[in-house]
Amino acid sequence: MNILIIGGGGVVGQKLAHALAAKGTLRGDAITRLTLADVKDPTGLDAPFDVETVTCDIADAASVNQLIKADTDVIYLLAAIVSAHAEEDFEAGMNINLFGTYNVLERCRALGTAPVVVFTSSIAVYGGDIPNPLGDHSYPNPQTSYGGQKAIGEILINDYSRKGYVDGRAFRLPTISVRPGKPNRAASGFMSSILREPLNGQEAICPVAPDFLHYYLSPRKCVENLIKGAELQAMDLGTNRVMQMPGRVWSIAQLIEAMTAVAGDAPAQLIRWDAQPEVKRIVSGWKWDIHADRAEALGLSADDSFEDNIRYYLEDDKPAA
Amino acid sequence: MNILIIGGGGVVGQKLAHALAAKGTLRGDAITRLTLADVKDPTGLDAPFDVETVTCDIADAASVNQLIKADTDVIYLLAAIVSAHAEEDFEAGMNINLFGTYNVLERCRALGTAPVVVFTSSIAVYGGDIPNPLGDHSYPNPQTSYGGQKAIGEILINDYSRKGYVDGRAFRLPTISVRPGKPNRAASGFMSSILREPLNGQEAICPVAPDFLHYYLSPRKCVENLIKGAELQAMDLGTNRVMQMPGRVWSIAQLIEAMTAVAGDAPAQLIRWDAQPEVKRIVSGWKWDIHADRAEALGLSADDSFEDNIRYYLEDDKPAA
Repeated sequence: MNILIIGGGGVVGQKLAHALAAKGTLRGDAITRLTLADVKDPTGLDAPFDVETVTCDIADAASVNQLIKADTDVIYLLAAIVSAHAEEDFEAGMNINLFGTYNVLERCRALGTAPVVVFTSSIAVYGGDIPNPLGDHSYPNPQTSYGGQKAIGEILINDYSRKGYVDGRAFRLPTISVRPGKPNRAASGFMSSILREPLNGQEAICPVAPDFLHYYLSPRKCVENLIKGAELQAMDLGTNRVMQMPGRVWSIAQLIEAMTAVAGDAPAQLIRWDAQPEVKRIVSGWKWDIHADRAEALGLSADDSFEDNIRYYLEDDKPAA
Repeated sequence: MNILIIGGGGVVGQKLAHALAAKGTLRGDAITRLTLADVKDPTGLDAPFDVETVTCDIADAASVNQLIKADTDVIYLLAAIVSAHAEEDFEAGMNINLFGTYNVLERCRALGTAPVVVFTSSIAVYGGDIPNPLGDHSYPNPQTSYGGQKAIGEILINDYSRKGYVDGRAFRLPTISVRPGKPNRAASGFMSSILREPLNGQEAICPVAPDFLHYYLSPRKCVENLIKGAELQAMDLGTNRVMQMPGRVWSIAQLIEAMTAVAGDAPAQLIRWDAQPEVKRIVSGWKWDIHADRAEALGLSADDSFEDNIRYYLEDDKPAA
């Protein structure tokens, strides 16, 4: 079992690599090789199988053709220009999110080896005046270029799978929280930073009211679902390879209550409430009444409680004091 | 008003050109120039404005860049590799239907002139296990590469419009009948040929039963809707530029009854009933319970009766004896 993670340097890619190293198998076969590819050389890891780290520009077909080999069994395509970035730099978003996906699928078609391709889509495909609830079979009406490019990726995954060029599956990821690492300037950044920074003993700003609702999944559970996602059998997927990955709806108040329940009263005191109309304007257009019936029926799952999300952060990611 | 029809050599493109010549204006302005572009030099026409015919390969960005000029006000993007052809030749479908659309939109973005772009999508975007009724906000679940490429075109039209690069609008065309010209090998070909050939005094084969239902529009009404479609105001379109073009559901028996009502008993005698399981297998997966609420609210419309479709064929297309 030879696995390639494109976007292997990112938060999810790195966690997935470690989870695969711990598991040792995928789709019932021992993992013999894992390649982590990213635009910058990704961090490697110790594993009971060969690990290679490589740089690759998926916008460049020649680079992709070198990366994906005839003996590649499973490809995780996680690389993306994210929301705010794709909005600012339209060309970068198109080149990576649309043509990068196309280059990966075309390489598989040329090889004729029909590898499993696990593609991460996003709840950013939902948007605009589409009635709730939303889910697997809702009309994708993205209001960002990132969401549009992900919706296009879904269609390509379906068509290349229908033609037998790949054995694809695409999962619309919920917002991942608690996301480790540095605060970023994404509009969704506060959904992790209001927890992560206080848990690290630092101040954080919450730009929306406590009753703001959103759809969340922990990084640990996301990785668990991505592994299950690769292990699904084509015969169980039918004519459509796209589904919502399970998440759960929580208010900001519930996130903070969960943090307090797990880590005591102190962290919540570090949150400064500073309403930011511009952030509120963006995120109030986001969808949260989202359901993942198909994935749940196939055995994927959400976190049991947000207290779990907090615990996973403390166990997996909190920097040593 | 400088208009470009890409796919100007096709049945719809030619009829659209003649309708524009008869009308003389578009979006309230006198038409000054019409360019008909196609992969082979399209037939020209007499018109009260300049008409140019040119060849263009929309899969080639340089060819598109030469075609679309800074003074192009309205672009009709009708060119496509159709269903059966795109299924047989995957690369041709991707190159024309996906990259051709992309090249046109990218040229508009580079020019910065935000022309009106009217894109013809198709009811082929519907498919699979999606519950009826289907319409503007149904989940596109195409079961052909052509349908997938059209669904991708819709997303691109929306995103380039949202960004202000074009003023786009996309219409999912019903099956056009009675379509003039030679019989072709498309699975849907019989939906015109069982009427056209008998009206021309020739035999035709009907490969499905009289109760087979489908969603139809006449070429004349399609062109009328495409003109109205260009004239819609952006402010009335909101965050989504994609809609179903109105059509009507008829059974094969109703098509033939309409033909008999208009043209007498003789034509129907020329239909030979020859059930073809392979055709039936393909077309029984096609969707027909389709509704065009948005377009109807915006003033687009379907044929009043299929007798009109028959009359339009006799008036507009029947070859002189």
